[in-house]
Amino acid sequence: MKIVLVGASGTVGRAIINELSDRHEIVRVGRSGGDAQVDITSEDSIKEMYEKTGAFDALVCAAGDAHFGPLTEMTENEYMIGIKNKLMGQVNLVLVGMKHINDMGSFTLTSGALSGDPIPFGSSVSMVNAAVEGFALGASIEMPRGLRINVVSPNVVEESMEKVGTYFRGHVPVPAARVALAYSKSVEGLLSGQVFRAT
Amino acid sequence: MKIVLVGASGTVGRAIINELSDRHEIVRVGRSGGDAQVDITSEDSIKEMYEKTGAFDALVCAAGDAHFGPLTEMTENEYMIGIKNKLMGQVNLVLVGMKHINDMGSFTLTSGALSGDPIPFGSSVSMVNAAVEGFALGASIEMPRGLRINVVSPNVVEESMEKVGTYFRGHVPVPAARVALAYSKSVEGLLSGQVFRAT
Repeated sequence: MKIVLVGASGTVGRAIINELSDRHEIVRVGRSGGDAQVDITSEDSIKEMYEKTGAFDALVCAAGDAHFGPLTEMTENEYMIGIKNKLMGQVNLVLVGMKHINDMGSFTLTSGALSGDPIPFGSSVSMVNAAVEGFALGASIEMPRGLRINVVSPNVVEESMEKVGTYFRGHVPVPAARVALAYSKSVEGLLSGQVFRAT
Repeated sequence: MKIVLVGASGTVGRAIINELSDRHEIVRVGRSGGDAQVDITSEDSIKEMYEKTGAFDALVCAAGDAHFGPLTEMTENEYMIGIKNKLMGQVNLVLVGMKHINDMGSFTLTSGALSGDPIPFGSSVSMVNAAVEGFALGASIEMPRGLRINVVSPNVVEESMEKVGTYFRGHVPVPAARVALAYSKSVEGLLSGQVFRAT
């Protein structure tokens, strides 16, 4: 399979490459490095990326930002950061990608445990993660040409605990290699409309 | 209790008034009619509304639009309709409302069954409904002053079946009076961070 991986240089992205690159061709996409570049907040940038990658069998997105901050200080603009990036960035990867993906291909997006297991300062992330899951479920039943769409929802990644552990007290961290298996299940399996929780 | 009800003239809004008005003071808010007016897509309009209503004990929002359309024809702009209206409209009712609501007050927002039970043409609505639920869960753990926040998720309302029934084949319609009980549970109960499914 030819797999376009957005977020290839991140902790999870690298684990996905480790898991899948022996069996598949991976097109590594990053904000600056990699085989192709993309700014997922820009529909034009997404279009350019797909022009460069050409037809493919699977799109995996392991990228997406949202703003962390205390609820009582958050404004609409701060919620819009996650909406433009992690939510609509991923939605646009699907909307535009549908014009380039081969029959029976798959889209795999990323949410995260906060959609159902919130932490302080995380209201925007809970919102955006849940939205990604709702979109994928809604889109899954309308996918043409045998296309599939799933979401991987990882808990906090073990390799990131040193940086963000303070915010995730009591959460069970997951090794990135274990998270990568959820992406494998989505890409190499046949289910659609699922949230694969990597816990 | 003094309850600010946004969407007071809708089918569900009127049922909420029937259920709650004997026991509480209801401030009826609509787009044009009612005791106060609001355009929930405008933060300024929301601020003006709260200036007019003054301090209150509960905000109930039974309003919010999103775009229905086939996935393969949907564009970013059409997803943004629901994001600006049903999602960020309700989020802003909370963010601004926190400055006006009395201690121990409650916010009750509205999502809908499509977050977990999608229908054709509903990918934007599934996305937005899930996002409202994720936001409320995330926000619930950071609410100051004993404030609460919940979401009511109604299935398609019986009184709307003549208009929208074609899209909801197989769904069990719920009488608006039964949906109103979920709002009563949120406002008059003590739970927070819940999705009350009216089915």
